[in-house]
Amino acid sequence: MERLPGFRDFFPEPLPKGEMWSADVREYIFDRWQTTARNYAFQVYDGPPLELLELYTAKSGEEIVGQLYNFTDKGDRGVSMRPEMTPTVARMIAARERHYKKPIKWYSIPQLFRYERQQKGRLREHFQFNADIFGENHPAVDAELIAMLTDILRSFELSADDFVVRISSRNAWQEFFRSQGGDEADAYEFYQAVDKIERTATEDSAKKFDSLGFTLEKVRNFIDSSEPTEELQEVLDNLKARGLGDFVKIDYNVIRGLAYYTGVVYEAFDRHGKFRAIAGGGRYDQLVNLVSGGKNDMPAAGFAMGDVVLVELLKERGLLPEYNPSLDVYVMVEDEALRESTLELVQQIRDFGLHAEYPLAATKPDKQFKRALELGARFTVRLTDEGTALLKNLESREETALEANTVAERLI
Amino acid sequence: MERLPGFRDFFPEPLPKGEMWSADVREYIFDRWQTTARNYAFQVYDGPPLELLELYTAKSGEEIVGQLYNFTDKGDRGVSMRPEMTPTVARMIAARERHYKKPIKWYSIPQLFRYERQQKGRLREHFQFNADIFGENHPAVDAELIAMLTDILRSFELSADDFVVRISSRNAWQEFFRSQGGDEADAYEFYQAVDKIERTATEDSAKKFDSLGFTLEKVRNFIDSSEPTEELQEVLDNLKARGLGDFVKIDYNVIRGLAYYTGVVYEAFDRHGKFRAIAGGGRYDQLVNLVSGGKNDMPAAGFAMGDVVLVELLKERGLLPEYNPSLDVYVMVEDEALRESTLELVQQIRDFGLHAEYPLAATKPDKQFKRALELGARFTVRLTDEGTALLKNLESREETALEANTVAERLI
Repeated sequence: MERLPGFRDFFPEPLPKGEMWSADVREYIFDRWQTTARNYAFQVYDGPPLELLELYTAKSGEEIVGQLYNFTDKGDRGVSMRPEMTPTVARMIAARERHYKKPIKWYSIPQLFRYERQQKGRLREHFQFNADIFGENHPAVDAELIAMLTDILRSFELSADDFVVRISSRNAWQEFFRSQGGDEADAYEFYQAVDKIERTATEDSAKKFDSLGFTLEKVRNFIDSSEPTEELQEVLDNLKARGLGDFVKIDYNVIRGLAYYTGVVYEAFDRHGKFRAIAGGGRYDQLVNLVSGGKNDMPAAGFAMGDVVLVELLKERGLLPEYNPSLDVYVMVEDEALRESTLELVQQIRDFGLHAEYPLAATKPDKQFKRALELGARFTVRLTDEGTALLKNLESREETALEANTVAERLI
Repeated sequence: MERLPGFRDFFPEPLPKGEMWSADVREYIFDRWQTTARNYAFQVYDGPPLELLELYTAKSGEEIVGQLYNFTDKGDRGVSMRPEMTPTVARMIAARERHYKKPIKWYSIPQLFRYERQQKGRLREHFQFNADIFGENHPAVDAELIAMLTDILRSFELSADDFVVRISSRNAWQEFFRSQGGDEADAYEFYQAVDKIERTATEDSAKKFDSLGFTLEKVRNFIDSSEPTEELQEVLDNLKARGLGDFVKIDYNVIRGLAYYTGVVYEAFDRHGKFRAIAGGGRYDQLVNLVSGGKNDMPAAGFAMGDVVLVELLKERGLLPEYNPSLDVYVMVEDEALRESTLELVQQIRDFGLHAEYPLAATKPDKQFKRALELGARFTVRLTDEGTALLKNLESREETALEANTVAERLI
């Protein structure tokens, strides 16, 4: 029986040949995400991996359905596995924001699902760190989010030589679009064309912009010659005050593909341009209102960072931690007559919060010792009689005799 | 827009009225599960939340489909959201076990999905701690798993007065079934009837057993008068040697509903009998072979513990941790002219791994101080000029003047 194409098994280290995804690496990634989020005083939340289909079609329209894992459930509801977290958190905020002091700072690490045509490296699920701030529309919110994004990447030992956060503004683009006489009904199509401009052949882009009443030249001109808006300048100054100026730059190439963004937007890229965006986000002041059926106006901004591009980048830079098995102590059973008292010792050690392993069934002592080394044990311990134990430090190879019931304390 | 019935949002503390599921409580539960699993030297793994439908129908037959979130994906595959983790881990082990030293000890915390008719307290998803040991069929494996199950519940401050693990044996039941001339084709139906015996009216049980060629009396007799098998005695002795004897008892009422169990089985119950089973597991020596199409014989045993009954039980016993907001420091901005240097200070503090918050936009000092208290800050700090800071301990209310760039170090 096979796993579904585009889905991942996460195996424990050391990884079997042919498997790319390590459960230990995933723990490492999640840990860094969480740690930085807590440094920034964000609180954790989660929502269901399955939602009503209309939560996703309400804003993006029906065309998104082609990319969804959607189906009709046994209660005849149109449902979908979540392709992104923002609609869910907007729904939760719309329902319960009155209860929380503003600004609300929340993070989550959902698994997300998209039915995409299989391509190399394109998966149908990924994990994504999501962080959002609700209830405040000051540019300091965008700066706080971009600072956290930057500090998360720094926590993986990535430097300003490795990545840059390119910051832009939907407001600036909207103004340009209107000032050039763009038709409001075409705005989203125009933004999408800008979003794809760096990945699209020049003639195709030119044709696209022509069809919307623009010229590629004018669009490029706007990208190349524009100065930061007042809002973007505030974001920049804020980040510079934190000492993070080297990690960011204004770049109007960025506009973000999703329909719901309304203000400052940004994407983090590797400096060598080898990978897709590492993270992206922006302001979306109208989504909560939309999801609540117009009942709840709520400024909102957030970003997301997926695990797949991040792991690829860290791997390429040699920044993934090496696998180091670790165990506090391997408890040997050299004499099966002492197994019962050994079990008592194992229990004592684990009760102290220590990581302990022992041979479940009778095993030759040399095999036990080998197992202790494989598991990265700091110590072995073995009973010599009911009351005495020999504790061996596997680094120094020093051996100490002590009372069995003092072993656990000694190991802390 | 509403969430789907039977699905949960996990909100941050303090919980809004009308919401029952705390993201912080969930973190607490997950943390205890992980901590104990690591003490027992288990390694983490994960698999996809979506699998081929046949992974679930292969063993349980088509009747299980009524309870699944199954559908046909856009590639025309029959797929299902996972209703349990065991088939997934059996698939992973079947594919890659050769790579790993035995015994293999793995754990995971998947979210699982079942389409059940809505009843009070019956959800359509839950999180479930899963732990399994592969490659060893000694009763010490069952004991190791039951010991971990017990230690997990103890880690939530539950005592032998709160719960008991009732241990039984499919082997013993199988022998009884055969010795009474039971028809092998009816075995699973018979086990299911035994599994439900405590929840079924006497006359209905009697009728059921009659139809299978048994009498309820004989079944009850077997339950009441049976002595532990040799294997069960070994499990018991092992647990007693660990000092866990008070937490377990032999009880042939337990048989487990799932088809794939083959040996020792067990379920943990609250002593007052108010809740459904807290956890359950057993040996399933044929499942890996089945999932691998007969290519991989592999002894296996494991158990699972869901989050829903556990949280209900801990809540009833008053054992859920109280919500204690905690923040290392709230950095105040009393003078907006000092905002830029304050941002530098915030960044320094967070770079030291400390949890810090500050007012994103201009806020009155008394409101800032109130916010610091709400967030459970240990300290406030505010700059008095570019180089000097006042650090206030919110417990003792003592205030200290110090150089701004020594604040972070001072707080560690």
